[in-house]
Amino acid sequence: MKIAIAQLNPIIGDLPGNAQKILETAQHAVSANASLLLTPELSLCGYPPRDLLLNPSFVEAMNTTLQKLAKDLPPNLAVLVGTVVKNTEAYITGGKTLFNSIAWLEAGKIKQYFHKRLLPNYDVFDEKRYFEPGLQANYFSLDDINIGVTICEDLWNDEEFWGKRSYAVNPIADLSILGVDLIINLSASPYTVGKQKLREAMLKHSAVNFQEPVIYTNQVGGNDDLIFDGRSFALNLQGEIICRAKGFETDLLIVEFDETQRDLQLGSISPVYESEDEEIWSALVLGVRDYVNKCRFSEVVLGLSGGVDSALVAAIATAALGKENVLGILMPSPYSYEHSISDALALADNLEIKTHILPIGELMQGFDNSLVELFAGTEFGIAEENIQSRIRGNLLMAIANKFGYLLLSTGNKSEMAVGYCTLYGDMNGGLAVIADVPKTRVYSLCHWLNFHSNREIIPQNILTKPPSAELKPCQVDQDYLPAYEILDDILQRLVHDHQSGEQIVASGHDSAIVNRVLQMVARAEFKRRQAPPGLKITDRAFGTGWRMPIARVFSIQ
Amino acid sequence: MKIAIAQLNPIIGDLPGNAQKILETAQHAVSANASLLLTPELSLCGYPPRDLLLNPSFVEAMNTTLQKLAKDLPPNLAVLVGTVVKNTEAYITGGKTLFNSIAWLEAGKIKQYFHKRLLPNYDVFDEKRYFEPGLQANYFSLDDINIGVTICEDLWNDEEFWGKRSYAVNPIADLSILGVDLIINLSASPYTVGKQKLREAMLKHSAVNFQEPVIYTNQVGGNDDLIFDGRSFALNLQGEIICRAKGFETDLLIVEFDETQRDLQLGSISPVYESEDEEIWSALVLGVRDYVNKCRFSEVVLGLSGGVDSALVAAIATAALGKENVLGILMPSPYSYEHSISDALALADNLEIKTHILPIGELMQGFDNSLVELFAGTEFGIAEENIQSRIRGNLLMAIANKFGYLLLSTGNKSEMAVGYCTLYGDMNGGLAVIADVPKTRVYSLCHWLNFHSNREIIPQNILTKPPSAELKPCQVDQDYLPAYEILDDILQRLVHDHQSGEQIVASGHDSAIVNRVLQMVARAEFKRRQAPPGLKITDRAFGTGWRMPIARVFSIQ
Repeated sequence: MKIAIAQLNPIIGDLPGNAQKILETAQHAVSANASLLLTPELSLCGYPPRDLLLNPSFVEAMNTTLQKLAKDLPPNLAVLVGTVVKNTEAYITGGKTLFNSIAWLEAGKIKQYFHKRLLPNYDVFDEKRYFEPGLQANYFSLDDINIGVTICEDLWNDEEFWGKRSYAVNPIADLSILGVDLIINLSASPYTVGKQKLREAMLKHSAVNFQEPVIYTNQVGGNDDLIFDGRSFALNLQGEIICRAKGFETDLLIVEFDETQRDLQLGSISPVYESEDEEIWSALVLGVRDYVNKCRFSEVVLGLSGGVDSALVAAIATAALGKENVLGILMPSPYSYEHSISDALALADNLEIKTHILPIGELMQGFDNSLVELFAGTEFGIAEENIQSRIRGNLLMAIANKFGYLLLSTGNKSEMAVGYCTLYGDMNGGLAVIADVPKTRVYSLCHWLNFHSNREIIPQNILTKPPSAELKPCQVDQDYLPAYEILDDILQRLVHDHQSGEQIVASGHDSAIVNRVLQMVARAEFKRRQAPPGLKITDRAFGTGWRMPIARVFSIQ
Repeated sequence: MKIAIAQLNPIIGDLPGNAQKILETAQHAVSANASLLLTPELSLCGYPPRDLLLNPSFVEAMNTTLQKLAKDLPPNLAVLVGTVVKNTEAYITGGKTLFNSIAWLEAGKIKQYFHKRLLPNYDVFDEKRYFEPGLQANYFSLDDINIGVTICEDLWNDEEFWGKRSYAVNPIADLSILGVDLIINLSASPYTVGKQKLREAMLKHSAVNFQEPVIYTNQVGGNDDLIFDGRSFALNLQGEIICRAKGFETDLLIVEFDETQRDLQLGSISPVYESEDEEIWSALVLGVRDYVNKCRFSEVVLGLSGGVDSALVAAIATAALGKENVLGILMPSPYSYEHSISDALALADNLEIKTHILPIGELMQGFDNSLVELFAGTEFGIAEENIQSRIRGNLLMAIANKFGYLLLSTGNKSEMAVGYCTLYGDMNGGLAVIADVPKTRVYSLCHWLNFHSNREIIPQNILTKPPSAELKPCQVDQDYLPAYEILDDILQRLVHDHQSGEQIVASGHDSAIVNRVLQMVARAEFKRRQAPPGLKITDRAFGTGWRMPIARVFSIQ
């Protein structure tokens, strides 16, 4: 039996559009003689639909669209579609009013629903906000093959692999006892660095342990802060990869289940990424393209400071949208170095993007004049530095508003962590492209890009000069911050590893520096709360999965 | 037996400070001959601690603080303290690693822990992100009185009262079967309009139904967007209110449990609020005061436009912080009406707050000059309007940064809903004071304030002139928006009642207007995502409990 794996890129809430994508893929699957088509978790509405699920009319519209899709699909193909189903007993039994489900569509009908059993409720996941867990093992038979159906998290409870149990039940263990021939997993699993290795290792362990071939189908595409990387794959009974779909783009794979051997056969295997930098680059390019297009923009604008952050973001945007759709604005002040202009222009030249220069000296003077009386007797400080950044933010937003461009913000994760950025200034934007990329990684991505391109995209001088906000004369970042190698290591321990200040000091860092960083991170909470969505590439991003109180005393100690 | 109810106002994460508050209250309780002291849910860390709970060092520090508190407390008083407890079995049984618990402290020891059984995971509540539910009925005996212990949500599953079941188990039913003499409930229940009526009606139903006197202890104080209103109360066996603490301030109540009658005796009853306006006013004043002070500011600045929104916010801030701690900035443009200045000054006069006037005409000209080449051939539009708002936002932030003031933003809920506000402009601020107050309610609060004060606080002209953003000549809000009475009714149906467009039209609204509002609400998602925390006063605020995708197609239809 041939099984088609549809690695789809849905738009959140676009029920007719997403149904149309499933329909078109189904026609390809039929042409390839497939009997079964797999689509990702919640493929009908896109993942995550979030609070759209609280609207009864949205749930109703999903149901109507699903009924119609069942009728429109080719009759000789079984199709698994991700949808939500009402929990009609909720008012009697207690519990949430929806299930996160898979509908088995065939021969014009909805033949059965399968409900997700393990509901993730951590980091960016809020599934217990909406869904009740299913209580049954999910399986069905097709052409005498017994197929176990699992939805995303359902397979993430292999206690041997993790060394601990995350949920009371283990769906694959139940299915294995029932003796199914094949496990399929329909997922919407967001990208983080290195996650594919983890997925493949974990499912290999499960495949071998439970003696089940496994097909893993993942969503692809950017949805707000989340980037879904696709890379659907399948494992045979030996736990060997027998096929893998492309990363960061839609794909359709056909795999064959051999009915005699009761196992999956070798198919087409897309290669893994050579380096983390290449993988992250691909993720960010997809994240930008989808956010911009799904928000119905086609062009972007950004400030080019001559620094490394805006250089990387300009390169990502150019790769995502095409050079004709990226506008760089240079806004030098009297405190700007000469090389800031020349470096930014060299970058724009390399990328072949348009630029415009808007010096801000006169506007700075204008603000000084306005505030001269009120600020009399005070010294130049943070207030004046921020004014400059906010003048630039205003100019950029004016251009974005005037021409219908989306403004990209260019701050990196290290800055966002310690608050070395100006709210309503350089933080402005519809999307924070590298908000989850630490400064040290920004450099390595730039080096990778130049190497990979076989030519200089990011000008060498941008990579070698000391980073500076240029908000006062002769300023450099390291006047305020520890060296980025040190800062990023402290932040990794603090933010990702949940280490205490004591533990970080014990790892060899200077205690005065550690304490200062801890305080800065705690104090910058109010800035992060008002930041644009930032593309998530790590397991702990400052975004929808970071939920810290602002008015508090405790700095993670 | 005398029982003391401590209505405390903790600071999130301030473990030593919160422990000190409990300790001081315990000394008062002992002076009043109480045998038992009740404190709110998570009284040791404050509610909600949110992702601080993900830090092992925070959980460790809570435990250490609790041990010390047990030793420091008067030995002859039983004290119930809200804390978290590690679920040490989690790695074997699956499930979350913490419990939301109450510790019974007495005689220098932690005698027992009681775990919360019903975990809210909706709106602003994310308890399943952190906690595992307790499985046991919680009770203990003191002086031969059997006391059932429930934590907040544990009592919100009275299926007769609600007409439906929300959770599979009902802790009060279990305790009633066990024959306890008294139910206590330790809560951190955020304020929304009319919620106290609901609490009292619901607990009255439970008290009578299960034949149990009930003591309800609530947290008080503002924590970011959430305002806890206090108003702890107790009900006797007949379901009669026998005591009620003050609203929106700390309080300590003593109630007597009569061991012969097995019932609570009449105590001191604070009155209910006369009007919703008075209640909302009190909530907002507390919300501002606590946010400002808990963030360690003492003074605030805000823009005074001469309009009703900034007038109300100035009045709230003055009540919260004192007139000497509020600075109003007037920033007229060439498009400002004459009355905008005079009305703003009249307001400031009534409030006796300082003001400063910073005309923005020259800065507008400066931006026009900067952008003249880039904008050549385009017409005055949204871009130019937003520039003005962002100039004001920059000036206000400069003043805030320079003098260490917190900037208050003044947008109302109707504007936030439809996006009739400028991101990085008038939306700027550390706290959005009336972001959950619809425009029609803004007017009624102003009228209430003038009436209640027996004099004109909000100048009459501000209340009678047509609202305007004054971003171009002769502009009024109703050029762009339906009348606020109509808009607010549509928004109430859409946002609170989850009605579809069809249902809203069926209620009598014009379908073109409804469709336009629906589109505006959907399109403004990106602005709301970057808004400051807004004080929540309704059951559906645009804040931590509003989780909508930005890049999407579906507008709630």
